[in-house]
Amino acid sequence: METSYEQLCVADQRAVRAKIRSGSYCDHTSGLANGFLQANLVILDQSHALDFMRFCQRNPKPCPLVGVTDTGSPFIPTLGADIDIRSDIPSYHIYRHGVLDETVSDITALWDDQMVGFALGCSFTFEHALIRAGIKVWHIDNDRTVPMFKTNIKTIEAGPFSGPMVVSMRAIPQDKLDMVFAISAKFPMAHGTPIHWGDPAGIGIDDVNAPDWGDPAPVEDGEIAVFWACGVTPQAAILHAKPAISITHKPGQMLITDVAEDAGTPIATGAR
Amino acid sequence: METSYEQLCVADQRAVRAKIRSGSYCDHTSGLANGFLQANLVILDQSHALDFMRFCQRNPKPCPLVGVTDTGSPFIPTLGADIDIRSDIPSYHIYRHGVLDETVSDITALWDDQMVGFALGCSFTFEHALIRAGIKVWHIDNDRTVPMFKTNIKTIEAGPFSGPMVVSMRAIPQDKLDMVFAISAKFPMAHGTPIHWGDPAGIGIDDVNAPDWGDPAPVEDGEIAVFWACGVTPQAAILHAKPAISITHKPGQMLITDVAEDAGTPIATGAR
Repeated sequence: METSYEQLCVADQRAVRAKIRSGSYCDHTSGLANGFLQANLVILDQSHALDFMRFCQRNPKPCPLVGVTDTGSPFIPTLGADIDIRSDIPSYHIYRHGVLDETVSDITALWDDQMVGFALGCSFTFEHALIRAGIKVWHIDNDRTVPMFKTNIKTIEAGPFSGPMVVSMRAIPQDKLDMVFAISAKFPMAHGTPIHWGDPAGIGIDDVNAPDWGDPAPVEDGEIAVFWACGVTPQAAILHAKPAISITHKPGQMLITDVAEDAGTPIATGAR
Repeated sequence: METSYEQLCVADQRAVRAKIRSGSYCDHTSGLANGFLQANLVILDQSHALDFMRFCQRNPKPCPLVGVTDTGSPFIPTLGADIDIRSDIPSYHIYRHGVLDETVSDITALWDDQMVGFALGCSFTFEHALIRAGIKVWHIDNDRTVPMFKTNIKTIEAGPFSGPMVVSMRAIPQDKLDMVFAISAKFPMAHGTPIHWGDPAGIGIDDVNAPDWGDPAPVEDGEIAVFWACGVTPQAAILHAKPAISITHKPGQMLITDVAEDAGTPIATGAR
């Protein structure tokens, strides 16, 4: 039986994760599980894992690493005792040699004992704080996926991983810009402060109405386009690295954790 | 020609690093290079590097990872364009199979193309902020090394790396405790807020006057012993992991970087 977005909006984070695990919800997670850290997911063969961790360490704004599995283990007990990254994401992207090959709702059949999973913090977690402060977030109000763009900002490479920084965009009233900076600064593990605001061309975005991922969102009069580093950046890096197989979440459809969204340095909530 | 601590106290961070590199200064770096992030150093063979990075990710209070070299490269351009980790630390500890074997001032002869260097943030960086706020730091005023202790707090293991958390101790006037918390909270990449204060026995320290590393420091009437997670924790983990070779800084004698000490997410200052 399918579960609707509206039904999940009132559920707690474990209930949301259980619905996703059962395969009955395969859509975006923006606005769900208020108060809990959501995470981007990247799964790679162990042979690429060290370079990818270096990539995250060197690019902490787009790639704030909040959890890593043991090699061959699909569990991340530091983010939640029952999390299984093979099933707990609504939709997965399967990349083969850097090319998006298919989108599935469960990867149990693809998992092998040489795989390593990485969870990266996500801007969704601070959107809740923006909303609590009275700032409207258009894509949540309109049940869309946040618009995401490749930029001309280069990441710092690590081994085969390199490429452009990806950003997400939210239109913010100009008189709220300072407040938005102050709020997002409190979430260093969820991309922190914006990396750009104003003219999209300043970071190489030709058309702010044509995102590379997600849905277009309007920038109204009196609003300013504000751009945050985005956890889809690794997906752009995978295009360059071309590993035989890599698996990510589908942009906008995240891993919901049991860690509080304001955790500065996420640490064990579950088994040790 | 030997360089004295007093001479270095007035030098800038690059001059301090050059003196250390030349081998003319082999003592502690506490109080030096005001305003710049100092780092603990761990060097391991690549075969242990992924597990060690997982260990750091899972234990971010004692092991805030601020830089990682490429395999075989002794440089960390994200922390300073000219940093060479083979020579830029006053004294190194060489561990063989987990046992401290020798202490040297340069490891160039030991370096090989399978080694990976890790830089971890250090509490020295926030001591400058405490001093600016009028809080006396006894071991700096008295030219000693901060006292460090093994505790009964377990780290979260990763592969062969496990063991007790190591802490550093500073005696703080009781009425300044809130201020000290607020100041150290601003430095998440330098261990952040204290993990314990008051009775040392509460974290398994039998005798606060007998540190496992560094020099004893008094706790006077009206003061409280305050304990921060410490970047020597990996040295305790190495005792458990027993890698054939591992190299660290000598506790108290750190890598001085070009990154501002209040950097929330250290990112490239040097070459990309």
